[in-house]
Amino acid sequence: MADDTLTRDKFLGGRLQVWQPKTGYRAGVDAVFLASAVPAKPGQRVLELGCGVGVASLCLAARVPDLQITGIELQAEYSGLARRNAEENSLPLAVFEADLAKLPSEVRQQSFDHVIANPPYFDRNKSHPAKDPGRETAFGEATPLSKWVDAATRRLAARGHLTMILRTERLADLLAAMDDRLGSVEILPLAPRVGRRAKLVLIRAIKGGRAPFALLPPVTLHDGETHLTDKDDYASAIADVLRNGREFPWPTGSLKT
Amino acid sequence: MADDTLTRDKFLGGRLQVWQPKTGYRAGVDAVFLASAVPAKPGQRVLELGCGVGVASLCLAARVPDLQITGIELQAEYSGLARRNAEENSLPLAVFEADLAKLPSEVRQQSFDHVIANPPYFDRNKSHPAKDPGRETAFGEATPLSKWVDAATRRLAARGHLTMILRTERLADLLAAMDDRLGSVEILPLAPRVGRRAKLVLIRAIKGGRAPFALLPPVTLHDGETHLTDKDDYASAIADVLRNGREFPWPTGSLKT
Repeated sequence: MADDTLTRDKFLGGRLQVWQPKTGYRAGVDAVFLASAVPAKPGQRVLELGCGVGVASLCLAARVPDLQITGIELQAEYSGLARRNAEENSLPLAVFEADLAKLPSEVRQQSFDHVIANPPYFDRNKSHPAKDPGRETAFGEATPLSKWVDAATRRLAARGHLTMILRTERLADLLAAMDDRLGSVEILPLAPRVGRRAKLVLIRAIKGGRAPFALLPPVTLHDGETHLTDKDDYASAIADVLRNGREFPWPTGSLKT
Repeated sequence: MADDTLTRDKFLGGRLQVWQPKTGYRAGVDAVFLASAVPAKPGQRVLELGCGVGVASLCLAARVPDLQITGIELQAEYSGLARRNAEENSLPLAVFEADLAKLPSEVRQQSFDHVIANPPYFDRNKSHPAKDPGRETAFGEATPLSKWVDAATRRLAARGHLTMILRTERLADLLAAMDDRLGSVEILPLAPRVGRRAKLVLIRAIKGGRAPFALLPPVTLHDGETHLTDKDDYASAIADVLRNGREFPWPTGSLKT
């Protein structure tokens, strides 16, 4: 069953074990953060655009029972591994090998309570392509962010939630890609340490939401001002997300002065 | 010289004294923050779109010597007071009563090292009009944000700087209004207190800039977690901006891990 071009990696403290290519795009903490930030309830339908080997969808399935999760992945190698990972972890994820701009009719005929995505990081118009073709497709941007947002928005049910994770440098492009169908947009910056720039942002939006745009105070991932020891120093709430599969500590409540 | 429909208010610890209408739009700390965040150097040309009674431009002129500042204001009552305020404070500000979408030819024939703006706060499509007509024009949005950004971008010289202050809830609309002519966009959230949501954001962008979009760590305006006493409790760097007219403590330097 093992394959020397693959590794089998543990997520959520070993609760999830995932095959992924040794080279090319490899899922990391961002997929786990994405899954942890989805406000899904048992019984709901979830669509992941660009699911790769399935880490975000499987982390979500491990946290919230009885979800119906559909994953879309363009690259056959990754979609095949996503199916295998779902099966070996006994978690519900139906995978379609498809371009998100041309979703299969079975998917187009459905609407979803949640759409989630961890889109490619870099705008290919402004950077150099990666050498590995799989890595290039996952990191580069063959499909512009506006197509991701449009596909997500179309597939959301009324009052459905979009949840995304993105490199901060792409945030302006993402916000520009959202139109009036989405509202109640919240941006949660993930700062590596206190006072440092957030490199990643979590984004939530609601189809038909009417709350004003909100930029939330940053969540700090690591304790301390610098990395002093070999020991990992995730803040305890973040370690709980990564190791115990807890829901992300999303700041809520009223806008106080 | 006094007029019982006006007040004369002190800014920058009294260094600037400004006439403004008792009712209607009244300039506050946001105009002072805007002026403090403009990276202008002596001898440069500055254009303020929607200058009101001139507080931001005059604060900037008080900090940086030998600027050539032009203010555009649609409402005659405010543009007249801006001229009077410039004269009485002996500061260089040329005021044009004009719509920013139809700038006078004298202004259209110039390019500027800096364009600054503190545009209306609310999107009139989503809120109720104010009762006072002057207040309504200054707070509401007869002119959409995209027109502000377009007028600013057109009037900037190559490598010229745009500096704006905005309610956070309008940030997504502002970013959507920027096109490829602007780059090196930096967003600096102003949080009232540690861990609270920023209600205001300062924005800088450069015409033709190529640095990636950056979301900076929030600057905290007030010390302490709540307002406990009658005494104002601005953080010392912020008090220096408001009372001594210092440059805003804009975070710079490399993106550290």
